[in-house]
Amino acid sequence: MTNKTDGKENQMWGGRFSRGPSAIMEEINASIDIDRRLWREDIAGSKAHAAMLAAAKIISVKDNEAIQHGLGQITSEIERDEFAFSKALEDIHMNIEARLKEIIGEPAGRLHTARSRNDQVATDFRLWVRRACEEAETSLKALMLALTKKAGENADAVMPGFTHLQTAQPVTFGHHLLAYVEMFSRDAARFADARARMNESPLGAAALAGTSFPIDRDATAAALGFDRPCANSLDAVSSRDFALEALSAASITATHLSRLAEELVLWTSPHFGFVRLSDAFSTGSSIMPQKRNPDAAELVRAKAGRIIASLNNLLIVMKGLPLAYSKDMQEDKAATFEGMDALSLGLAAMTGMIGDLEANESAMKEAAGRGYSTATDLADWLVRSLNMPFRQAHHVTGAAVALAEKKGVALDALPLEDMQKIEPKITKDIFSVLSVQASVASRTSFGGAAPANVKREASRWLAALNKEKN
Amino acid sequence: MTNKTDGKENQMWGGRFSRGPSAIMEEINASIDIDRRLWREDIAGSKAHAAMLAAAKIISVKDNEAIQHGLGQITSEIERDEFAFSKALEDIHMNIEARLKEIIGEPAGRLHTARSRNDQVATDFRLWVRRACEEAETSLKALMLALTKKAGENADAVMPGFTHLQTAQPVTFGHHLLAYVEMFSRDAARFADARARMNESPLGAAALAGTSFPIDRDATAAALGFDRPCANSLDAVSSRDFALEALSAASITATHLSRLAEELVLWTSPHFGFVRLSDAFSTGSSIMPQKRNPDAAELVRAKAGRIIASLNNLLIVMKGLPLAYSKDMQEDKAATFEGMDALSLGLAAMTGMIGDLEANESAMKEAAGRGYSTATDLADWLVRSLNMPFRQAHHVTGAAVALAEKKGVALDALPLEDMQKIEPKITKDIFSVLSVQASVASRTSFGGAAPANVKREASRWLAALNKEKN
Amino acid sequence: MTNKTDGKENQMWGGRFSRGPSAIMEEINASIDIDRRLWREDIAGSKAHAAMLAAAKIISVKDNEAIQHGLGQITSEIERDEFAFSKALEDIHMNIEARLKEIIGEPAGRLHTARSRNDQVATDFRLWVRRACEEAETSLKALMLALTKKAGENADAVMPGFTHLQTAQPVTFGHHLLAYVEMFSRDAARFADARARMNESPLGAAALAGTSFPIDRDATAAALGFDRPCANSLDAVSSRDFALEALSAASITATHLSRLAEELVLWTSPHFGFVRLSDAFSTGSSIMPQKRNPDAAELVRAKAGRIIASLNNLLIVMKGLPLAYSKDMQEDKAATFEGMDALSLGLAAMTGMIGDLEANESAMKEAAGRGYSTATDLADWLVRSLNMPFRQAHHVTGAAVALAEKKGVALDALPLEDMQKIEPKITKDIFSVLSVQASVASRTSFGGAAPANVKREASRWLAALNKEKN
Amino acid sequence: MTNKTDGKENQMWGGRFSRGPSAIMEEINASIDIDRRLWREDIAGSKAHAAMLAAAKIISVKDNEAIQHGLGQITSEIERDEFAFSKALEDIHMNIEARLKEIIGEPAGRLHTARSRNDQVATDFRLWVRRACEEAETSLKALMLALTKKAGENADAVMPGFTHLQTAQPVTFGHHLLAYVEMFSRDAARFADARARMNESPLGAAALAGTSFPIDRDATAAALGFDRPCANSLDAVSSRDFALEALSAASITATHLSRLAEELVLWTSPHFGFVRLSDAFSTGSSIMPQKRNPDAAELVRAKAGRIIASLNNLLIVMKGLPLAYSKDMQEDKAATFEGMDALSLGLAAMTGMIGDLEANESAMKEAAGRGYSTATDLADWLVRSLNMPFRQAHHVTGAAVALAEKKGVALDALPLEDMQKIEPKITKDIFSVLSVQASVASRTSFGGAAPANVKREASRWLAALNKEKN
Repeated sequence: MTNKTDGKENQMWGGRFSRGPSAIMEEINASIDIDRRLWREDIAGSKAHAAMLAAAKIISVKDNEAIQHGLGQITSEIERDEFAFSKALEDIHMNIEARLKEIIGEPAGRLHTARSRNDQVATDFRLWVRRACEEAETSLKALMLALTKKAGENADAVMPGFTHLQTAQPVTFGHHLLAYVEMFSRDAARFADARARMNESPLGAAALAGTSFPIDRDATAAALGFDRPCANSLDAVSSRDFALEALSAASITATHLSRLAEELVLWTSPHFGFVRLSDAFSTGSSIMPQKRNPDAAELVRAKAGRIIASLNNLLIVMKGLPLAYSKDMQEDKAATFEGMDALSLGLAAMTGMIGDLEANESAMKEAAGRGYSTATDLADWLVRSLNMPFRQAHHVTGAAVALAEKKGVALDALPLEDMQKIEPKITKDIFSVLSVQASVASRTSFGGAAPANVKREASRWLAALNKEKN
Repeated sequence: MTNKTDGKENQMWGGRFSRGPSAIMEEINASIDIDRRLWREDIAGSKAHAAMLAAAKIISVKDNEAIQHGLGQITSEIERDEFAFSKALEDIHMNIEARLKEIIGEPAGRLHTARSRNDQVATDFRLWVRRACEEAETSLKALMLALTKKAGENADAVMPGFTHLQTAQPVTFGHHLLAYVEMFSRDAARFADARARMNESPLGAAALAGTSFPIDRDATAAALGFDRPCANSLDAVSSRDFALEALSAASITATHLSRLAEELVLWTSPHFGFVRLSDAFSTGSSIMPQKRNPDAAELVRAKAGRIIASLNNLLIVMKGLPLAYSKDMQEDKAATFEGMDALSLGLAAMTGMIGDLEANESAMKEAAGRGYSTATDLADWLVRSLNMPFRQAHHVTGAAVALAEKKGVALDALPLEDMQKIEPKITKDIFSVLSVQASVASRTSFGGAAPANVKREASRWLAALNKEKN
Repeated sequence: MTNKTDGKENQMWGGRFSRGPSAIMEEINASIDIDRRLWREDIAGSKAHAAMLAAAKIISVKDNEAIQHGLGQITSEIERDEFAFSKALEDIHMNIEARLKEIIGEPAGRLHTARSRNDQVATDFRLWVRRACEEAETSLKALMLALTKKAGENADAVMPGFTHLQTAQPVTFGHHLLAYVEMFSRDAARFADARARMNESPLGAAALAGTSFPIDRDATAAALGFDRPCANSLDAVSSRDFALEALSAASITATHLSRLAEELVLWTSPHFGFVRLSDAFSTGSSIMPQKRNPDAAELVRAKAGRIIASLNNLLIVMKGLPLAYSKDMQEDKAATFEGMDALSLGLAAMTGMIGDLEANESAMKEAAGRGYSTATDLADWLVRSLNMPFRQAHHVTGAAVALAEKKGVALDALPLEDMQKIEPKITKDIFSVLSVQASVASRTSFGGAAPANVKREASRWLAALNKEKN
Repeated sequence: MTNKTDGKENQMWGGRFSRGPSAIMEEINASIDIDRRLWREDIAGSKAHAAMLAAAKIISVKDNEAIQHGLGQITSEIERDEFAFSKALEDIHMNIEARLKEIIGEPAGRLHTARSRNDQVATDFRLWVRRACEEAETSLKALMLALTKKAGENADAVMPGFTHLQTAQPVTFGHHLLAYVEMFSRDAARFADARARMNESPLGAAALAGTSFPIDRDATAAALGFDRPCANSLDAVSSRDFALEALSAASITATHLSRLAEELVLWTSPHFGFVRLSDAFSTGSSIMPQKRNPDAAELVRAKAGRIIASLNNLLIVMKGLPLAYSKDMQEDKAATFEGMDALSLGLAAMTGMIGDLEANESAMKEAAGRGYSTATDLADWLVRSLNMPFRQAHHVTGAAVALAEKKGVALDALPLEDMQKIEPKITKDIFSVLSVQASVASRTSFGGAAPANVKREASRWLAALNKEKN
């Protein structure tokens, strides 16, 4: 890294510095490569601010018209990819203001009246995070819809429920998928709460203390879709908890995505073979042509690392910073963009995988029967039919399982006389609860795995999600 | 660490294991040292469950009475510190159930009907986290009240507002404190949202699939103060996002606490001297008897590390776990307890420090005048009085500051003729905006630092916080 | 939490504080519940310091004798659990010094000459971390030995090598276990490096600036087993990178442990069935009596969260702290103890599990043949025997696999004529490379999976590890 | 985000997939935007591999010549920015191999003999991390040199030493800077250790099991500057602890950088005024023209968040991954690049700031005298001259400070008679130790703050650092 100074006066803060920042300084200080993504928000904020300044007679109507026109032209230029972003101008705000001056001249210099980069950047970034929360909520609902549809189709497809990755009790594939619908619905609600909480306008806080100009903060707040202006100017420019809350919601969502991704990796392994991902979401191997790798699922699982680290990053940056603005806070954007981008991609990939996947019902059902998965049903039968205390029933069941294991047979293949040797009161009625279908069908308690429950829940979710879309 | 086996059969899962878990296994597996804190929640859950089982005729009224009585006795024993916790019984659930059996005999074995440790622990832990959220919200409001009172007392105490720890513009100490009231109010709202979202009952999800017993999950939910039962049994036993959300709210709060703590460390440094902490929250030095160290503030600042790490811990634990329960999830409690305990302590210490602190108004005011802090006021005057574009006014101001600095005088001590050499249209009216009091009094925009604003906001918060208390 | 003041003067810093610290302050400030673990280190440091003071004639020989005797008595008291630790005395240092005063009177007051709590705590903690590094290294070698022995026993037990959890190519179980020996050997080396780097004595740095007493820092360094004294007094009392380095080594080790733990969870799942853990390291289920849960493996996997979070915790605490000592640094011990304890337990549990596990060779071998795992061997045969470019061989192999899959047969069951339809030059020699045994036997490149390699490597490691033990 | 499929067969894994990956899949799967930075390493690895294949007669001399020539041409194309990177080709490896095929035709297809993308990417990435460690070590030494020079110039510039940001005892600015030289020297040693440990070649591990081709791994290891080949093929392709170790060293370094950065922010604040940063490393304000903001220091402080998060990211990604390669590991590069880039920038900026800064000796010295900073000297005098036990001397000193504070005078301005009222044996000799110069000059213990020590240490470091450069 070379350390040449560029020899010309920095264009933004003028004459007090005898030489421009060095190349290192430009490298560490300039944020334009990151914050150019905020161009729409920056222009929207400036348009609202200029219109308010004119309405409050702080600038002239004519100046406002020039500013609105110039900002409109810049919008077109950026949209058409004809805007020349400059690192020497440091950030998106100065890039746009400098271009505005080229286009409209002197009135551009009036736009920054009663404003500071501190409230400008706080406004732009909050608008961006607000939109990212809205998009996350929308994407989560698309994923919930994909899961709900697949759950409805598989409401009675028996599969093993696991604990400790050991076969525990039969459930259905639909029931399993609906568990994720519940998780993602809470994630969506977290983004909605975050969005509602952050929806206050920092604009007009100026550098940190407010301003002596008679500005109308309600007007700019309304123009930008905020519910109200922030009530304290220092808080407005110094706080980034809105981004931290969005990243927290993203991190929690990421744990859910990573759990489902882990399951896809397991289920597509030949050792499980429960599902087949579509070609679109599998890849091959350069040296092992037969492989069908669940790359997308693995990448979604890994994105949890990135998203959690983004939250960690911003929490660390904000720790211990005195009020008001410190330059440390410039790092808020890279962290937040990375975290929210990774979430967005992870949600899209997961929605694609779920929508396309094909369940292998026979493999699931076969697996559901392994491992004495209806042992609990046996124990429950003892409690219900023989009025045995549960803890005693548990011991009797353990003995039956041990015997079946020794004989190498499934629980429902253990002869009645063998069972009766363990507990003489057992009758042949016991066999009515030992099949996986019988087991799963019996789980009719609210929230239980019975196919009837699953169908009802899938319908409920489908209606709710479709209603929201309309 | 020795690896002796204890030679006796494990008391919980009975006969299939030929030798007991080794000492290492006991050490890594037993959670009683951690989860004994859940004893109240565990007993409440068992009482609700037994009452429901009796109402649903799954157990007899008499058995229920025995269970209620036995659990009542255990409550007394634990409250009187007469309960012998046993590591061999692994966790709080088995400790209580084993004691119940000693007290009431066979009916104890019926309590676990239609229940599993999986939904039991999920219920207990959720109850604990719910209460921790309520307490955090209450503690935050106590801190907000302390800040609001101190802000009201210091509504017109001028102090420097900083950016980059450089003197920027004058504000008031009250305005500065109210910025934190805004932050902590959002923190409190986050805990309230988390509490509302988590308030669903896992009880009755059993191991993972629900149960075939005709249980009444609405009844147990209502008895435990939950709004409704969880709608999916797998989700009920597998999800810990409620704890993650609480730790996220705690982590964001911790950044706010750490920022205020950093400011206390700065303000009590002899280089600032803005405030004096009470003796109760200062400590001395073993070798430097003159020291008054802001230990409590430093410890609050450091607690951010612990709280953020607790969140990080649980996010990492949950990443990539397949459904349903995995033993990894046993680590949820240590992480959550540590994070919420550290928050609780940090909030209490900060409330104590704020309540007791004394502001040094003269030191603050003197500092507020340093560093040409009214330069913006000069620039704004040029815009307002001379209709100068802001960017041009900014350059003129820069020249005036440079001249004042060269002459070694404050901005309001720069002679008018000097100013006029820079900009001939400047009149003596300029001096009406260059004092720190004039500056701060002029910041009357909504949310601005003007004392009138600060008084109004402090009154508004005081009324709101007192209303809630009643 | 009550906030009563205890009414009596704090015993440590004397008269300048008009009232004692409040209960909150005691709660947040006292570290004795954490740092009492440092008692051995604290006494060792004090003994070395007192002996040096006497040798340098800063205190009398008689005073030193009294101090040595008193510290010896305290050692006995703590070892016999007869020492009354007091929270009011805050930390281990004051607890011991106060007791020393009770035992020997006035000479106790001379022990702190030319010393401060700052260098005292830095010394104690460094001694503790040094020992923790030594123990981690020793534990890692015990685990490596268990893995090496098991690898030697399973040097030719064919198992599937996975990528993306898809069957990729056959390896042997021994080869797989030796991969972890390599990882853990680097982990052990990291602890050794950390230990060597931290082995400098902070004692004598006093509060931060050194002292005017003619102390002999080389003498105390030597007495405590340090290689030399720290060369800068500010660094000596302010740095905690030695703990960060230990926690980094622990975190990296934790990723390795968690990977092996994940594999144990997979391998013990009925879907794999590759290994059986001993009863000592499995647990049952309260409701599903047939379960054999790999709880220890899951807990080891989860401990990665705790260990990584401990590192995160201390990194966050240390971030941005100005020199020299800040009270924030008191949090170093909780974080480090937790991380190193979790590592210690994880290593012991893993060593136990590996030592006891039984491999199911037939299940592994059967699985190794699935999924066309010798496709690469086919491609390599084409390259070697037909001089086909690898990329072309890859395409031919892909076609053969697709045909075998369509016919539902293994690759070595595809008739020669079918192969020749795809590539006419294929001869029956091809079948010599398509079995899993042939495949694995052919991997004789350095570091490859061939049983001969595995045996050689296992012997090499066994010799190296046994040599170190002697 | 649209989800169109591109309609053409994926070019890498050929015919088994009926349609290409969707747009989402390309977005999440392709790594070329990240890993194109590895182009030099990829070409070096391929050249070494091809040369070895020819030497081992696995490919022909002519094919090798073609490959070497083709790779040389690609090098030129990339250096001249004439290489068209393609996202459809996913990663740097396929981009280069595809271009090689265009240039040299069929022999390109032979390059991948006895190699896999798994060992290829492991080799490339390890080469990159190795270089990054070397550069970090070099940069650290440049920073140490800048600090050492500045320390030598300020060996006797008295400044306050702080604990808890309270004035504690006088030190010198040179002594303070040398504390950081110690820290950064350990950081440099950590990078050196990491580099040495990782310097083994994965090349030849192939996909995971080694190969049946008679490759010479020693030859490729030597050609690429590795000390030896990795001894286990599974470890070679599955481990990323080398990157974790580099990121750990970076994170620890980042805490040191952030501490020094915090001090620069404090020292440049008008409340301290200890140092002045050069214009090159300060910035102005858009609304407050008088500001000189230490932006570079704040950004260096903030980078700690990014660097620690990068480590956290990769630790989380690696947690719980079974062997061998999982696609999750593709995320290793983004995390590592970001962390090491941020470190590199932070080190350069800090070196620039330190090299340019000007110390304000008089402000430092004035501050060093505040806060009764020589109280310890008074206590030590009592011990030394009156043979008072330290703890008693501490109490006497506390009384003297309290009296001086009450009278509003410095300690050396307290009349002798006042002192004698507290302790009659005090003589006027006491005043010889109460000035800041006397205090600092007396700290001659090894590692102490005395100017003579500082000069000696600065010379020692200067010699050591200059020697290394030659």
